[in-house]
Amino acid sequence: MLELTALQTDTQTLIDAINMTWVLIVTFLIFFMHAGFAMLEAGQVRSKNVSNQLTKNLLTWSIGVTVFFLIGAGVDSLVGGGGFSPAFGYEAPADWVGWLYGAVFAMTAATIVSGAVAGRAKLRAYVGYTFLLAAVIYPVVSGMAWYDAGLLGIDGAVGSAIGVAFDDFAGGTVVHAMGGIAGLTAAWVLGPRIGRFNDDGSANVIPGHSMTFAVLGTLMLAFGWYGFNVGTSAIFSPENAFLADQLGRVAMTTTIAMACGAMGAGAVAWAKTGKVDTLYVANGLLAGLVGITAIPHATSWGGAFVVGGVCGAQLPVVFSFVEKRLNIDDVCAVFPVHGSAGVIGTLMLPLVVAPSYLGSTSRVDMFLAQFAGVAIIATWTVVTTGLIWGAFRALGQARVSRTHEQEGLDVSEHGVETYPEFGDEGAAVADGGTVRTDGGLANEESQTSSELRSDGGLFDEDFVPAERDMDERSD
Amino acid sequence: MLELTALQTDTQTLIDAINMTWVLIVTFLIFFMHAGFAMLEAGQVRSKNVSNQLTKNLLTWSIGVTVFFLIGAGVDSLVGGGGFSPAFGYEAPADWVGWLYGAVFAMTAATIVSGAVAGRAKLRAYVGYTFLLAAVIYPVVSGMAWYDAGLLGIDGAVGSAIGVAFDDFAGGTVVHAMGGIAGLTAAWVLGPRIGRFNDDGSANVIPGHSMTFAVLGTLMLAFGWYGFNVGTSAIFSPENAFLADQLGRVAMTTTIAMACGAMGAGAVAWAKTGKVDTLYVANGLLAGLVGITAIPHATSWGGAFVVGGVCGAQLPVVFSFVEKRLNIDDVCAVFPVHGSAGVIGTLMLPLVVAPSYLGSTSRVDMFLAQFAGVAIIATWTVVTTGLIWGAFRALGQARVSRTHEQEGLDVSEHGVETYPEFGDEGAAVADGGTVRTDGGLANEESQTSSELRSDGGLFDEDFVPAERDMDERSD
Amino acid sequence: MLELTALQTDTQTLIDAINMTWVLIVTFLIFFMHAGFAMLEAGQVRSKNVSNQLTKNLLTWSIGVTVFFLIGAGVDSLVGGGGFSPAFGYEAPADWVGWLYGAVFAMTAATIVSGAVAGRAKLRAYVGYTFLLAAVIYPVVSGMAWYDAGLLGIDGAVGSAIGVAFDDFAGGTVVHAMGGIAGLTAAWVLGPRIGRFNDDGSANVIPGHSMTFAVLGTLMLAFGWYGFNVGTSAIFSPENAFLADQLGRVAMTTTIAMACGAMGAGAVAWAKTGKVDTLYVANGLLAGLVGITAIPHATSWGGAFVVGGVCGAQLPVVFSFVEKRLNIDDVCAVFPVHGSAGVIGTLMLPLVVAPSYLGSTSRVDMFLAQFAGVAIIATWTVVTTGLIWGAFRALGQARVSRTHEQEGLDVSEHGVETYPEFGDEGAAVADGGTVRTDGGLANEESQTSSELRSDGGLFDEDFVPAERDMDERSD
Repeated sequence: MLELTALQTDTQTLIDAINMTWVLIVTFLIFFMHAGFAMLEAGQVRSKNVSNQLTKNLLTWSIGVTVFFLIGAGVDSLVGGGGFSPAFGYEAPADWVGWLYGAVFAMTAATIVSGAVAGRAKLRAYVGYTFLLAAVIYPVVSGMAWYDAGLLGIDGAVGSAIGVAFDDFAGGTVVHAMGGIAGLTAAWVLGPRIGRFNDDGSANVIPGHSMTFAVLGTLMLAFGWYGFNVGTSAIFSPENAFLADQLGRVAMTTTIAMACGAMGAGAVAWAKTGKVDTLYVANGLLAGLVGITAIPHATSWGGAFVVGGVCGAQLPVVFSFVEKRLNIDDVCAVFPVHGSAGVIGTLMLPLVVAPSYLGSTSRVDMFLAQFAGVAIIATWTVVTTGLIWGAFRALGQARVSRTHEQEGLDVSEHGVETYPEFGDEGAAVADGGTVRTDGGLANEESQTSSELRSDGGLFDEDFVPAERDMDERSD
Repeated sequence: MLELTALQTDTQTLIDAINMTWVLIVTFLIFFMHAGFAMLEAGQVRSKNVSNQLTKNLLTWSIGVTVFFLIGAGVDSLVGGGGFSPAFGYEAPADWVGWLYGAVFAMTAATIVSGAVAGRAKLRAYVGYTFLLAAVIYPVVSGMAWYDAGLLGIDGAVGSAIGVAFDDFAGGTVVHAMGGIAGLTAAWVLGPRIGRFNDDGSANVIPGHSMTFAVLGTLMLAFGWYGFNVGTSAIFSPENAFLADQLGRVAMTTTIAMACGAMGAGAVAWAKTGKVDTLYVANGLLAGLVGITAIPHATSWGGAFVVGGVCGAQLPVVFSFVEKRLNIDDVCAVFPVHGSAGVIGTLMLPLVVAPSYLGSTSRVDMFLAQFAGVAIIATWTVVTTGLIWGAFRALGQARVSRTHEQEGLDVSEHGVETYPEFGDEGAAVADGGTVRTDGGLANEESQTSSELRSDGGLFDEDFVPAERDMDERSD
Repeated sequence: MLELTALQTDTQTLIDAINMTWVLIVTFLIFFMHAGFAMLEAGQVRSKNVSNQLTKNLLTWSIGVTVFFLIGAGVDSLVGGGGFSPAFGYEAPADWVGWLYGAVFAMTAATIVSGAVAGRAKLRAYVGYTFLLAAVIYPVVSGMAWYDAGLLGIDGAVGSAIGVAFDDFAGGTVVHAMGGIAGLTAAWVLGPRIGRFNDDGSANVIPGHSMTFAVLGTLMLAFGWYGFNVGTSAIFSPENAFLADQLGRVAMTTTIAMACGAMGAGAVAWAKTGKVDTLYVANGLLAGLVGITAIPHATSWGGAFVVGGVCGAQLPVVFSFVEKRLNIDDVCAVFPVHGSAGVIGTLMLPLVVAPSYLGSTSRVDMFLAQFAGVAIIATWTVVTTGLIWGAFRALGQARVSRTHEQEGLDVSEHGVETYPEFGDEGAAVADGGTVRTDGGLANEESQTSSELRSDGGLFDEDFVPAERDMDERSD
């Protein structure tokens, strides 16, 4: 009998080992999404602001994960009803696997914001906001939503009042909508880039500098997203049930929604212009992924088609609304991709839920729980983000100066050029005056563009209405 | 005894869980090959066609995987002797893991074609072909080859006649040669890009726009290929045998063949020109991988050296043959990389098979089975692909117009520019007339290239013989 | 009892299967670091040398892994006290998993060197050195350090004399410092690129051509590094203990050190110049990773903060020292990133060791063991690398000619252009004279730069002191 006991212990240990192997690997995949975001965002900004975007991405991870280690994970557990339990105080080192797994979700929310405020936010403002997002804003959201005792959980005030918990499997609202809404709010407070809108409210297109990097980032994100969604399911449940059906379902719905998101956005673009806009297809693919992220475990393949297709199709429409009606300069379209798609997918659960998952729950109650969760998370995100960026703005710390914006944030904030040998940026100097001389850099073309820069930072007054100053906007 | 039974059940479940964990992760890796193909192909096309290539890649996955879900997987099982069993009808959600695992192989075959027809195929033609490839062409091939009851399987008509089944471990012929042969066929029907060949049949080089993206794609593909080849082996066999030796052998032969492919192609390039052409080394690495893909489980390390080296070395030779003799414009060299390398590796099995794997099988019979498989798959692929693209051509739907080809497919098919701030494309307008004005884009250089474009789409009649029209080709 | 025995066998097999699944996946992740290095280095060199850098990366892997298969793994086991046991002779194919796992570490060391010698080393010299590194230099280091019977192991001459073994968990010194020191040595023997230093010893900045590729490479490396560090821990120990605590600790310390490395380097850059240099942040992130690589299993979270922060902060300082004092042209900063950071992290172990890990070992003895390991490995690396590159130089085979360096190694060594449509390189011809004519490439701008090249390879004599010849350097 002793041997038999030993073997039973082995079985539990083997299950734990399989789960931990899986969690580690999907955590690495989700981490890799930072590389995807970096490329997606870099591709969608102008070449004079690329290094700024890349630096923000590097610092989002570096500062954010440190803050989440020291503070954020503790706030998450506190709001979730478990007391303030920061990650540095964990007694069992094995628990750090769980912390890192939580951290990569948190950092995904954080990094989304940088795409919205590209091209004019001060680095220190962005860093300050990221600090607060990782310490408080996101942990409050995840704590409310992902613990039974959290506000939206089955034992929380809202969840128990409705009788149904808010259901967000992998963070369609907790991570993506939160990030997308925060980005929209920050972009609104910050105001648009110079020249983005005309006096009559009409919009000018400021295309990103590299579609190749944008699509590379898209596909890297899709790769990591398999870790994000499928990896939210363990291999074995806490009760040691093998979750093969859940894993298979999530893998399938994630794939189908991604595909239908790309097709949906491409179809709408094609219907509107007769052309299949590459960036809409790419962002539609991501919107399809965002849309399914809250509910990949709970819907059927038909539901994945509908959710993915709707979230893809709404992308060009919502993008246009944000641009033309709201006149908000959401540079990398983070609201249509992460915000509205995340909300739509989360709210569609009662419509597309698989009967086996619904059970005896009322669809109305389910909708109420989903709606309450979205409303509370959105309100929290808008208020906190608006206050923080509003404070930065009141202090004159939100935006770079007009001159710095015109010459680009790479030079003004980082002292670097992203592509010193290409384009109009050819002759700017990287480190404050050192002559570059390895045989070839100084040529006529770059001298010319140097002159262009010296007389106005490549900025042409004829095109940009001088009277339009972002601080005179009426919100 | 009850506990003992419980433990035996546990063992089976643990084995299933380990296998599923592995299958999910390698599936993600193989999915990532789409990012690799996107970069490899984008790097090898001109900058005016990059977004077109990227869009085709995004749509290949999105449309292809949807079609494979609705139709293709059912055709695969039908041809394999199991009845039409489409993926949407699976009863156990866990089976969707197997569907997705099959889908990433199918989509690899599909995406190879896009590299061959780059720069002149109409998007709708490519999409239509991809639909049919995912629905029928590829599933017929995989169904014939990868089921015991399929045509080439041990119980199929050909396999049982020879007494040996066609042996293609991970798809050297089923996936790669099929894709490469389809690409060559489509490129042949479509005709070459304008200016690719002169009237006397001599060829002009049209270099890709970014070696960096091409090599990035190569290395991303090699990464995913470990999932492709090693991941074709389960961790445990259906009989619960731990397949450690097979996993080790496949990991080793894949690595050695990849290395020898790069060295083989580099050595031939060096012998011919005295220089080690970067793109040959990169594509040679891939050709080495393709070559071993059918047989990594069955050969020794010496066999991996030979197969990898031969498949690398044949690359410059076959590329030159396709270009100079066949005058086919296979833009991304998909035939030498995927087609001929896949065929060679598959056919070399009897020569390099490890004695332990050969057993009592006759090498002649083994060759007959391999040859029959290659011949049947190649014939099926050439005929179906030729008919489809021939029909598109007859309908005038295969190629974009001469003007659109000259101005680039990014603008004409997608309404975008890949690099709006760089190169000669500097001043084209992305969305049909909106003025771009964020301070800097309008400068003298781009105005100049705008003029160039307006008087002929950057197309210089002096260089391209006007009388050479692709529709007058005599094949 | 028979069944019970069978089940016990199952448990061992399941443990082996979980370990092998993990080892395979982390091996793939570590392999992916080659793509990261390729991008990081490509981004940091000039556009005329990018394809050279990419080719070196492809060949490092291809030639290196082949040599390590035929020779290196045998030398490793020989130096480790196990007799010459080359990988091609393994009896159990499953052992090739272990070989490949060792090979990806070896190749990481090899590829680091290419970043230091960029822009002027002859391809044949680099390939020759890589051959010797993979065959002898690295295997001697890993054999000394990673076997009990190796020189630095507990049963080796040095280890047993001190009574404490050299402790380098994942290769902070064995892989990274070795590579960084080898790179510095090779760069020193080779001399700087033309124009890198002035006659008075002051330095000129030669910026890399793409910050985007450099940061992409950084994040790809960080992704792979999770495989490198966490994957150095098995899931189960040889005694079948589940290593959950070790896995959690390594995952956490790796993350924290990476974050603090980025912040440390960024803070120093900001303090020095008032700007947060993107490349310092990226390389600081890597330096933090390098710093923790020797000791992620042995330190606390506080130790990870200190080691990461110090290794990040030293980066700008050491970079400046190498540049301004040593006048060594370490193009991609491989010494500050991999060399000094690796040494510092390894030597800091006694300072930051967790009490539970230290046990009854004396911190002084621990320092002696670490110091002895670093000193012996550094000496071996400097001497062998110096001799080999010195011999190449004496034979006139170390550097390309002045003309070839000026026109760029892409054209002279590989016959290709990386970006034929962009920048000053616009009109160079890729394959020795073939006219490019697909409608558009020949335009006025590129004709102009063609003229620039024809009268001096884009090289402006006014800027580069003609009398400064690298062969007249006094070392």
